[in-house]
Amino acid sequence: MGKNLNDIKKPIFYFSSTLTEGNRNMRDILGSKGANLAEMTSIGLPVPPGFTITTTTCAEFYATGQKLSRGLINDIHKYIGRLERDTGKHFGSNSNPLLLSVRSGAAVSMPGMMDTVLNLGLNDQSLQGLEQATGNRRFALDAYRRLINMFGDVVMGIDHHHFEAELDRIKKRHRAKQDTDLNVNGLKAVIDAYKQIYKKHTRQDFPQDPYEQLQKAVEAVFHSWNIPRAIAYRRINDIRGLLGTAVNIQTMVFGNMGNDSGTGVAFTRDPTSGENVLYGEFLINAQGEDVVAGIRTPEPVLKIKAWRPDIYRQLLATKQLLEKHYKDMQDVEFTIEQGKLFILQTRTGKRTGNAAVKIAVDMVRERLITRKTALMRVPPNDLNQLLLPSFIDKAKGNVLTKGLPASPGAASGYPVFTADEAVEKKEKGTKVILVRKETSPEDIHGMDAAEGILTSTGGTTSHAAVVARGWGKCCITGAADIIIDEANRTLRINGTLIRGSDVISIDGSTGEVMLGDIPRKRPGFSKEFYTLMQWADKTRKLEIRTNADTPADARVARRFGAAGIGLCRTEHMFFGEKRILAMREMILADNTTARRKALKKLLPYQRRDFEGIFTAMKDLPVTVRLIDPPLHEFLPQEITTQQRVAKDLGLSLDYIQRRVDQLHEINPMLGHRGCRLTVTYPEILEMQVRAIVEAAINCRRRHINAMPEIMIPLIGVDKELSMLRELVLRTITAVKAEKQYDGKLAIPIGTMIEIPRAALTADEIAVHADFFSFGTNDLTQMTLGYSRDDIGSFLPEYLDKQILPHNPFQTIDMIGVGQLVDMAVTKGRSVKEKLKCGICGEHGGDPDSITFFASVNLDYVSCSPFRVPVARLAAAQAVLKNQLDLFI
Amino acid sequence: MGKNLNDIKKPIFYFSSTLTEGNRNMRDILGSKGANLAEMTSIGLPVPPGFTITTTTCAEFYATGQKLSRGLINDIHKYIGRLERDTGKHFGSNSNPLLLSVRSGAAVSMPGMMDTVLNLGLNDQSLQGLEQATGNRRFALDAYRRLINMFGDVVMGIDHHHFEAELDRIKKRHRAKQDTDLNVNGLKAVIDAYKQIYKKHTRQDFPQDPYEQLQKAVEAVFHSWNIPRAIAYRRINDIRGLLGTAVNIQTMVFGNMGNDSGTGVAFTRDPTSGENVLYGEFLINAQGEDVVAGIRTPEPVLKIKAWRPDIYRQLLATKQLLEKHYKDMQDVEFTIEQGKLFILQTRTGKRTGNAAVKIAVDMVRERLITRKTALMRVPPNDLNQLLLPSFIDKAKGNVLTKGLPASPGAASGYPVFTADEAVEKKEKGTKVILVRKETSPEDIHGMDAAEGILTSTGGTTSHAAVVARGWGKCCITGAADIIIDEANRTLRINGTLIRGSDVISIDGSTGEVMLGDIPRKRPGFSKEFYTLMQWADKTRKLEIRTNADTPADARVARRFGAAGIGLCRTEHMFFGEKRILAMREMILADNTTARRKALKKLLPYQRRDFEGIFTAMKDLPVTVRLIDPPLHEFLPQEITTQQRVAKDLGLSLDYIQRRVDQLHEINPMLGHRGCRLTVTYPEILEMQVRAIVEAAINCRRRHINAMPEIMIPLIGVDKELSMLRELVLRTITAVKAEKQYDGKLAIPIGTMIEIPRAALTADEIAVHADFFSFGTNDLTQMTLGYSRDDIGSFLPEYLDKQILPHNPFQTIDMIGVGQLVDMAVTKGRSVKEKLKCGICGEHGGDPDSITFFASVNLDYVSCSPFRVPVARLAAAQAVLKNQLDLFI
Repeated sequence: MGKNLNDIKKPIFYFSSTLTEGNRNMRDILGSKGANLAEMTSIGLPVPPGFTITTTTCAEFYATGQKLSRGLINDIHKYIGRLERDTGKHFGSNSNPLLLSVRSGAAVSMPGMMDTVLNLGLNDQSLQGLEQATGNRRFALDAYRRLINMFGDVVMGIDHHHFEAELDRIKKRHRAKQDTDLNVNGLKAVIDAYKQIYKKHTRQDFPQDPYEQLQKAVEAVFHSWNIPRAIAYRRINDIRGLLGTAVNIQTMVFGNMGNDSGTGVAFTRDPTSGENVLYGEFLINAQGEDVVAGIRTPEPVLKIKAWRPDIYRQLLATKQLLEKHYKDMQDVEFTIEQGKLFILQTRTGKRTGNAAVKIAVDMVRERLITRKTALMRVPPNDLNQLLLPSFIDKAKGNVLTKGLPASPGAASGYPVFTADEAVEKKEKGTKVILVRKETSPEDIHGMDAAEGILTSTGGTTSHAAVVARGWGKCCITGAADIIIDEANRTLRINGTLIRGSDVISIDGSTGEVMLGDIPRKRPGFSKEFYTLMQWADKTRKLEIRTNADTPADARVARRFGAAGIGLCRTEHMFFGEKRILAMREMILADNTTARRKALKKLLPYQRRDFEGIFTAMKDLPVTVRLIDPPLHEFLPQEITTQQRVAKDLGLSLDYIQRRVDQLHEINPMLGHRGCRLTVTYPEILEMQVRAIVEAAINCRRRHINAMPEIMIPLIGVDKELSMLRELVLRTITAVKAEKQYDGKLAIPIGTMIEIPRAALTADEIAVHADFFSFGTNDLTQMTLGYSRDDIGSFLPEYLDKQILPHNPFQTIDMIGVGQLVDMAVTKGRSVKEKLKCGICGEHGGDPDSITFFASVNLDYVSCSPFRVPVARLAAAQAVLKNQLDLFI
Repeated sequence: MGKNLNDIKKPIFYFSSTLTEGNRNMRDILGSKGANLAEMTSIGLPVPPGFTITTTTCAEFYATGQKLSRGLINDIHKYIGRLERDTGKHFGSNSNPLLLSVRSGAAVSMPGMMDTVLNLGLNDQSLQGLEQATGNRRFALDAYRRLINMFGDVVMGIDHHHFEAELDRIKKRHRAKQDTDLNVNGLKAVIDAYKQIYKKHTRQDFPQDPYEQLQKAVEAVFHSWNIPRAIAYRRINDIRGLLGTAVNIQTMVFGNMGNDSGTGVAFTRDPTSGENVLYGEFLINAQGEDVVAGIRTPEPVLKIKAWRPDIYRQLLATKQLLEKHYKDMQDVEFTIEQGKLFILQTRTGKRTGNAAVKIAVDMVRERLITRKTALMRVPPNDLNQLLLPSFIDKAKGNVLTKGLPASPGAASGYPVFTADEAVEKKEKGTKVILVRKETSPEDIHGMDAAEGILTSTGGTTSHAAVVARGWGKCCITGAADIIIDEANRTLRINGTLIRGSDVISIDGSTGEVMLGDIPRKRPGFSKEFYTLMQWADKTRKLEIRTNADTPADARVARRFGAAGIGLCRTEHMFFGEKRILAMREMILADNTTARRKALKKLLPYQRRDFEGIFTAMKDLPVTVRLIDPPLHEFLPQEITTQQRVAKDLGLSLDYIQRRVDQLHEINPMLGHRGCRLTVTYPEILEMQVRAIVEAAINCRRRHINAMPEIMIPLIGVDKELSMLRELVLRTITAVKAEKQYDGKLAIPIGTMIEIPRAALTADEIAVHADFFSFGTNDLTQMTLGYSRDDIGSFLPEYLDKQILPHNPFQTIDMIGVGQLVDMAVTKGRSVKEKLKCGICGEHGGDPDSITFFASVNLDYVSCSPFRVPVARLAAAQAVLKNQLDLFI
């Protein structure tokens, strides 16, 4: 892909209008920012010149004792020389000094996670030079104090608050409200104070040698690659296989050189709606970091039109050029220095699921990309956001305030004020909204744990907004009316006091903040969504079914495009008020006759349930799984309930307690459940099969084409299946005869493959099965020996230490569990060539797992109703990924 | 093997001195009894002539609606004709009637399990004939009443007690104490009464047509193949793959024709000690069934010498002939009819483990068999009996009574009086002795559940004795002083009243019955045992190690021939008084420093334990498994203990309870244990490795060659092992440096393969392992999804319904779990050719499993100390079985 192998040894790549050594395809070694700076320079965009130190160099830095090599330092000097020639400025000069920014940049964008130093090259001498070159003493002093602060903090690890406190003290003394109110004397005092802080904490003077500054800064960027928060970000976002970070060293431009200067962030399309308009925010007379950090609330980018129509036209042209070139929506950082536009960075813009769909489909229409590319463009998980509920308008009630709609969705929860509190409460099952003045990378884990995020400052491109949008998490920023009292754990919104015990609701699509737990509704879909889904359906080979136990779920899934039910659990049906009593009567029975009597009471309920589901899924298959959980799950564990049940069933409390004790299991996961129950109590199976067949016959007689399939869970030994299959067939025949039904009613009988032994002996089992359905939840538990209920005690550490690449209950463990799936499909089809194979574990809705399932030739995946569109798209991508593998 | 394929179609095989169609190699189709009747006839033994209907015919009977075919009935008529010609008697004749026995006989002997009819052919007419031929009216009447009783019971299913009650009534009326006291009139009354019982229950007259009798009897034998107790016997004894039962129809001979008649059972060697002497019992003037049923207590066979020296000589000659011919110890049934000896049956004699070893080794010396045959002759599990404890003589105290020493061993337990009670109490963990007047096949399950069996009647060849010996279970029969009061659940022995709450002890080697729980001692071994073990060691390829956690166990195992320790668990070491407190302190610690402090206290204990074990096993490898069970197993669950621990450790009760709650797991089997513990608490691993290394160094400095190996349990992912191996190596190096030890101390580091995923990814794991040790207990739990603690709720039904061929925790599931073992060995050795592979689950002591482990080329098995000799022999047999497979 245009990358020369020798390039890897080259430690530095230069970019300027006179020479550009890199390009966009080199993000592995230049990082994504560096590759794009080179690319943008090549296509003629006004990028301040500079150079990039490669990720390979970072890897080498770690391999060789975390020191910069002599050779590298020499190279840096050489390239600084070239930069001096190209800019006509001189590093450390007392007349026209070259100032640099030093930024990290890995191959994958990690917003805010890596460290940056600006204004590098300033010292007591070049300060004079900057003042001379700009004619602005105040500006020069401000730049210098920023450098000492940033350098001290980022490079030398001096806590930011030392600088902040000193600044506040001096501002107070000079009666300055804002930083900008400080005059030259004030700034001088700040610089002196900062130098003292620097010395106190490092026992060295602030370095006056600009090369020493640069060298230390480069080292700091390299170090920042492996600080805990960077590692955590990579883990949370499942980013792996990178060499390290690149370092971008670039000529400084200043958006804070007066009112003809400014800085901003622009998206080439609206990242929330996907609309084809220039979108973003800017601040006049500000440094770039001010926008991202959310300290001042910026203006919409559209307002540049009024302020500087020439710049706005340039920005529109840049948008066109970038999209034509990159063929995707871009997220651009720009700075206007004294009326001149500079582009500092471009990268693929993060977007909501909604926007991803619209942009992909629109770009096909605009002939920028092909349908295949469009399908690959939308991360399947992002579709979840489209399916996110929104609040029912009428139920909204009193809106307390309105912030910026930073990431769509609707969330309710108890307010929490720190990231740790969010995690803590989440672990206890409490839904929370993280409420902060602003968020920073330190808050990542709390943002992950919260239902939604609400900040009182910051714009729609602030840290909170960018991260939340990336995750599809509901977020409101810049809700300025909110006063947070972290100490008392309360917040006050326009006079209303909200405590930690009050639920609040936030609407990420409107920015509205409300009191109480507002009811939500399911969303409608855009026409672009339907278009994309159509393309996906034409492309994919996997059939997508759903896991649904009720007619309502079945209807939802059908609307989302499910081609049938792959898993209809029957046990939830036993939990209704009257049913549970009959169920308990059945379990407590100590002989077959009593058990049959209780089962007879359950029959009408089950039949009615099945009729409802078959009707909702008419003309489509419904795979009913026979009873699965251990019986003790249905028995009351608490004495009061036990007493009530004893009374209701006319049994002694003692008897019930004895029975509960008897049925208790040490490891219920590996106990008396699944088909083991119907082996020992065949009458349960008979009742369930009877209910299915009677329901199907009733439907057919109402001209509703019920298509039941019967699935027997937890098979481990072929004889279990052959015996139970026999019993199912006998029951079907008996019920048909009894109901004098002589229509065609072929009911396939299959099994779940969820015990390792079943996979290992799939050739023996397939003889008795019309289909296989992989229960990858249980298969994962047994293959890895992880109880899903107990994994919390070690999984986080396993992920941290990278023993596991991901939670195996989210994405299938392909090497282990996947090997068994593959083996079972192969063995099963070795005796039944056309054996239908599907999967109905939760992995059925996980895109990476779906790619795997496609690769082992499953016929279908079955997932929860709201994952059906995700699965449809992921299945299409699985096909396309294979094509890409073939042709590139 | 001399069996013609066409033979299978031939339904009947004849045997008499004029024509013999079968031979001993045809037991598959003639059953073992039938094949031996043919064989014995061929070699000239005096066998009453008859014929055998094949097992194939039985299978056909079941295949074709359980009816005898026309063709078969014709064949039977034909062979009866031949029999009439050979004997000069006539079926149903009123002058010299041919009387027949009809007996079942499968390919494998199943004592007492199948039904038998004697005297068949008698009716009102031939009764006259029998009287005429024998000149003994009383005898003829007695034979007839026996036929009606047996035919009614066995063929027509009339409960035996109906006949018994009527007999008692008539005996009382005729003032007869014994059956034999009944005179002709009494017997006539019995016959009339029996006929009425017959009619009442069958609504038919007792069949007068002898062919009808025969046909019905044959059908009954076939039916008896599938009655529940026959199925249960096959299950308990793991008998599979048989076609059905054969039917042996043979001319009757009578041991009850006066005082020159008799019947007996003889073994060609002593089945208890193995000594080369004629051994057995006989009764004068009795039917054969009387001996086996244990109703009268018989005389030792030696007494025949005095009674009829000619017969005794004939018996000795028969012994010689049979052993020379069969090359094994035989169990012979014989009858003396009016001074003439008949041999009715021979079969390989059941024997104790002791006898099996002695007979096998003696027969090699006698040049009857080869060493290989001798090795194959002893069922490895029978060696267990040699290792059975016996009572310490001095501790025996008061012997209440003495019965017959029917099966050796020493057992103590609470007396129970029914089989059901035995099973019930056993399930609750109570050890019981089954005390019965006599046992019958209906008692099988109770005999299985009991520690030992004690009967008040019956000889050493009674049902109880034969079954108990087969199982190697301690048994005393014919303890005539015992009066059993089943209703009050007590027994009285010579005036001592024993209640269900009193423990009794029985010595199966002496026949002594004692009150109380007598202490036992371990056995010494015979020289034959050592000889056989030597032969086994020369033959086997598998190395045999032991599972031992203490120096005492290690010494025992070493004496039994263990070549090292394959599994030294370390967790039991934490349960001592002071240790458990330090262990609890460690678990309750909420930070690493506190945890390290507690671990430091545990270190000296562990080090001392290891020194003891290394010393006991000097020069042999000791594989130490690092901590495995979940931590909550060490915490107190009861409030009183919790309170004490709180006090001892200066913690609040509340804290301890919270910690217990926190550590509670839903499925502990799949939870936070094994290497997962040392991943999250590496300091535990460091302490254990330190203890091992320090102990090894201390030993070496005392010139004791300690050879530790370190085994990491529950590995599922290669990275777990690579990370922990690294830590183990670092710790070893650190301790060696600290102790200034520079001798060679290479400690192999391996892993258990006990999680399915580990087997599936063994090639990845082997990279970091010096050896694999299969933990087949856990591997079975996870591969089959069976919790060993909870399997009781469905395993019995699974065995009954033959869903599982055997308990997979006893004998390895070769198809499923075995497939993973095979796969892991192959994958492991694909990356490390010489990778040492062993197994340390309980299957390591199971002969069938050992055969399997040999077949997949494991290097060693490790089993409990008392299974070591079993494993040595089984490993030799595994080699020989392969040779047999090769050459036959």
